[in-house]
Amino acid sequence: MTTPAPLAAPGAPGAPCTIGVDFGTLSGRAVVVRVRDGKELGTAVHTYRHGVIDRHLPGTGAVLPPDWALQHPEDWRDVLRVAVPEAVAAAGVDPGQVVGIGTDFTACTVLPATADGTPLALLPAWARRPHAWPKLWKHHAAQDQADRLNALAHERGEPWIGRYGGRISAEWQYAKALQVLEEDPEVYAACVRWIEAADWIVWQLTGAESRNACTAGYKGIHQDGTYPSSEFLAALHPRFADFPATRLAHPLSALGGHAGGLTAEAAAWTGLPEGTAVAVGNVDAHVTAPAAGAVENGRLLAIMGTSTCHVLSGPDLAEVPGICGVVDGGIVPGAYGYEAGQSAVGDIFAWWLRQGLPEEYRAEAEAAGEDAHAYLTRLAAAQPVGAHGLVALDWMNGNRSTLVDHHLSGVLAGLTLDTRPEDVYRALLEATAYGTRVIVEAFEQGGVPVEEFIVAGGLKKNPLLMQIHADVLRRPVSLAGSDQGPALGSAIHAAVAAGAHPDVRVAAAAMGSVERAAYLPDPGRADAYDALFAEYRALHDHFGTGPDLLLHRLRRVRNAARTGSTA
Amino acid sequence: MTTPAPLAAPGAPGAPCTIGVDFGTLSGRAVVVRVRDGKELGTAVHTYRHGVIDRHLPGTGAVLPPDWALQHPEDWRDVLRVAVPEAVAAAGVDPGQVVGIGTDFTACTVLPATADGTPLALLPAWARRPHAWPKLWKHHAAQDQADRLNALAHERGEPWIGRYGGRISAEWQYAKALQVLEEDPEVYAACVRWIEAADWIVWQLTGAESRNACTAGYKGIHQDGTYPSSEFLAALHPRFADFPATRLAHPLSALGGHAGGLTAEAAAWTGLPEGTAVAVGNVDAHVTAPAAGAVENGRLLAIMGTSTCHVLSGPDLAEVPGICGVVDGGIVPGAYGYEAGQSAVGDIFAWWLRQGLPEEYRAEAEAAGEDAHAYLTRLAAAQPVGAHGLVALDWMNGNRSTLVDHHLSGVLAGLTLDTRPEDVYRALLEATAYGTRVIVEAFEQGGVPVEEFIVAGGLKKNPLLMQIHADVLRRPVSLAGSDQGPALGSAIHAAVAAGAHPDVRVAAAAMGSVERAAYLPDPGRADAYDALFAEYRALHDHFGTGPDLLLHRLRRVRNAARTGSTA
Repeated sequence: MTTPAPLAAPGAPGAPCTIGVDFGTLSGRAVVVRVRDGKELGTAVHTYRHGVIDRHLPGTGAVLPPDWALQHPEDWRDVLRVAVPEAVAAAGVDPGQVVGIGTDFTACTVLPATADGTPLALLPAWARRPHAWPKLWKHHAAQDQADRLNALAHERGEPWIGRYGGRISAEWQYAKALQVLEEDPEVYAACVRWIEAADWIVWQLTGAESRNACTAGYKGIHQDGTYPSSEFLAALHPRFADFPATRLAHPLSALGGHAGGLTAEAAAWTGLPEGTAVAVGNVDAHVTAPAAGAVENGRLLAIMGTSTCHVLSGPDLAEVPGICGVVDGGIVPGAYGYEAGQSAVGDIFAWWLRQGLPEEYRAEAEAAGEDAHAYLTRLAAAQPVGAHGLVALDWMNGNRSTLVDHHLSGVLAGLTLDTRPEDVYRALLEATAYGTRVIVEAFEQGGVPVEEFIVAGGLKKNPLLMQIHADVLRRPVSLAGSDQGPALGSAIHAAVAAGAHPDVRVAAAAMGSVERAAYLPDPGRADAYDALFAEYRALHDHFGTGPDLLLHRLRRVRNAARTGSTA
Repeated sequence: MTTPAPLAAPGAPGAPCTIGVDFGTLSGRAVVVRVRDGKELGTAVHTYRHGVIDRHLPGTGAVLPPDWALQHPEDWRDVLRVAVPEAVAAAGVDPGQVVGIGTDFTACTVLPATADGTPLALLPAWARRPHAWPKLWKHHAAQDQADRLNALAHERGEPWIGRYGGRISAEWQYAKALQVLEEDPEVYAACVRWIEAADWIVWQLTGAESRNACTAGYKGIHQDGTYPSSEFLAALHPRFADFPATRLAHPLSALGGHAGGLTAEAAAWTGLPEGTAVAVGNVDAHVTAPAAGAVENGRLLAIMGTSTCHVLSGPDLAEVPGICGVVDGGIVPGAYGYEAGQSAVGDIFAWWLRQGLPEEYRAEAEAAGEDAHAYLTRLAAAQPVGAHGLVALDWMNGNRSTLVDHHLSGVLAGLTLDTRPEDVYRALLEATAYGTRVIVEAFEQGGVPVEEFIVAGGLKKNPLLMQIHADVLRRPVSLAGSDQGPALGSAIHAAVAAGAHPDVRVAAAAMGSVERAAYLPDPGRADAYDALFAEYRALHDHFGTGPDLLLHRLRRVRNAARTGSTA
């Protein structure tokens, strides 16, 4: 062993680092990042032991109703106990070099907790009650509550409804909480804090409750300094009137802020020094913007994975129909942050592969050393635009933007006896690009200019999907430099919280990266896609807007048949 | 060896027999049948060496355009050479006991031939020209010709158009012949006889041309003793004016009639005595009626296999919108024969399996000793009605009745991330039952009563499919007794041609069989299906009727992309 270099030497092994921890749907990832230039020094992933809980409640084996999706809080703490020390070890840094830790989470993933932050799900008195458990973002069983909430908001002309594109999602805090109140009022009564997992995990690290401005705005209907009125909420349910005052209210913290220092217990879990700076909680999509060169106004960042989130900052406040929301400082302080999304993207491609593959395809993929995605992508890439004769609606997990309707479902049109697996696969890739185009057009028509389209997330590695997006959008596609954008973004926020950079924009310039215009549109293909997008749009409007909502009726029939009740 | 029993002893080994030969899409089947009681004594199948020719022309390897489907005449003659002697051997009868041979064919499968019946495809001068080849029933590339023919027929108020439900199919003689004339006029000029394969095969057996009343009526627009006028045909194309007079005209023969005796050459192929009675040509669906107890008026016979044909006799002439046709004596002499059909049924289920199966499904099916169809059927059968949340349009091979449109394609709606292979499989079974219900309702609303629903064909062995039909139709489903209905039907017609029975009705009573009401509807499931059928009907009307024919546009885009032209 040689004598260690001074801690602050730029680029030296002892240079200051931060840790970003990204809590995803199936696993959590920790990344150790050098503060000076964003170099990723080490990473570790911990897969949740319980994954997505959508069939049986842990411990009891009780069958969950359709559209439910829960998670286990202990899975999240395991990421702190396992992935963080493993990442530090992989990076080969001394824990003392770590000046800050930042986290990001799926959202709206939300749970009922006691006054000290203990999840009800972990208390023996409540563990057997499904509504005591954290509801994952893709818990879609509160659509009825969301429908009533939206109808009432429009009826009363609530001032905040336009900020959410006219629709509050069934995925968000109010619909999910109202479902608890209506279906298990005792759990609701025992819930002292209704808290985003994004803030709950920071509570675990610092020992003190905090609430971030991002989820409060996008998921908690916090606008212009206030929550929805008690009159509005009482009209939904008398006992819902005080919901924000009793279960949400807490001072909000700006993104990149310092939430507190690591407690002794959290220091023991992570192996980091007690008192290490902890950043304010954040959301996986929004936190990625500084990692991907997307903090400036007009840069639309699409984080494409199992689903896609779109985040975009702009200088002005605009109310764009069908987008998820606009929040002052929702992405970076000092700009209006806009969010939109697609409820499933990679999940749709994976769904198609779950239907199986012909045996000869398996054999050929194996012989070529490709996985099924790579093999189908190669076959699909050889087709001219339109040659499969298909158009699909990408609503296999509902539609987050711009229809905001989780009771929608997917449609495949144009099937013939010679439709092959790669044809459907390509049609599904295209459908997600059409869905993106609907969102981009909504922003531009709504007064929020889109000057660049940047992709982060696992799907940026699929060249066919990226080229299809360039062709369908008729614009260049830029790629985030990092393969672990959310975790890097959290590390950037940690650097700001630790005071290593003055603000998120400066930290982003130093630590983030983007490959500009990695894919360019081809004019001929773009023309062909214009025609097919018009067909998608017509199908979209037919199936997605009233009054003849076949897909809603099919969902009701399905749920009634599965639960043995009458449709 | 013991002394043979007298030839005519009832039930003895030497009792009189006939042979029925059924020419299907992929193979031909010969069955030796006892004349007295219809007992099937022996059978043999010969698979066509060239199968369906839809990619490359034999000999040249030339790529065929989309929607083409051809066959090879030598494959058909091979059935006579191989399957017939094998069936006789399998039956253990002496060829001398065979008193007649009858045949049935897919229709409209049609070919250009010289004056002596030689297929142009077998002449070196023409073999390299795709249009010289027999067009299989499912050749769907003449839709444009059919569209113009239909428009003109309605414009001119042609008296025959109502007999075909208002639509002449692209599958039939005129559309296919007009395609030849327009796309390869030299082949058209060399075509002296434009003849159904059903009649061509009889020509091979007897050495003399004959034309049966069934295909002339259903596929050749022969009504009230005449073909479409030369004025009508000239308006389609000047050189088409004399099409029926020059290429079709020939005296028509009633079904069950004696077409001639076996030539020496055909006797050598088949091993049967020269001069053996040959029945007039027939169509696979229509010929099945006497085999399945369906010759009486009001008994709707559905022959379910790769596709489904519906045949139904009635006492009165009615013009039913969207059915394939009504022909005087088209099924049995002395009644009006009605035909309708679904362009794909079993083909759709097979298509879904061709998309592949998950590996664990394969393993479980193998462990249970089931094939993929049986395994998925078992999984699907366990579901309550509606539990998959899907509704499908069964148009993967177009729609034969009641839309008569081969440019339609399939649609799947209601897909979610937890849609499984068995869910889609069941939805496809149901879609074909909904398609059947549309046809049954069209008959009844059109004034042709349906008193019984009888199923023949390979799919009668799928109990789930049969039960779904009973529930969707809300009526009992009867099953044909024989597993080889068309071949048995041909043998019945051969018995009449040979004079062993006085007419088809008497022969049917002696030789056919049916299991009445094998499946009964369940009222609860029937109620649930009423609601889902309403959704099918709405989808059907949306996608199947104008003015917004998305599926037509997708087909045009597909074909243009595949051929490199502009949509």
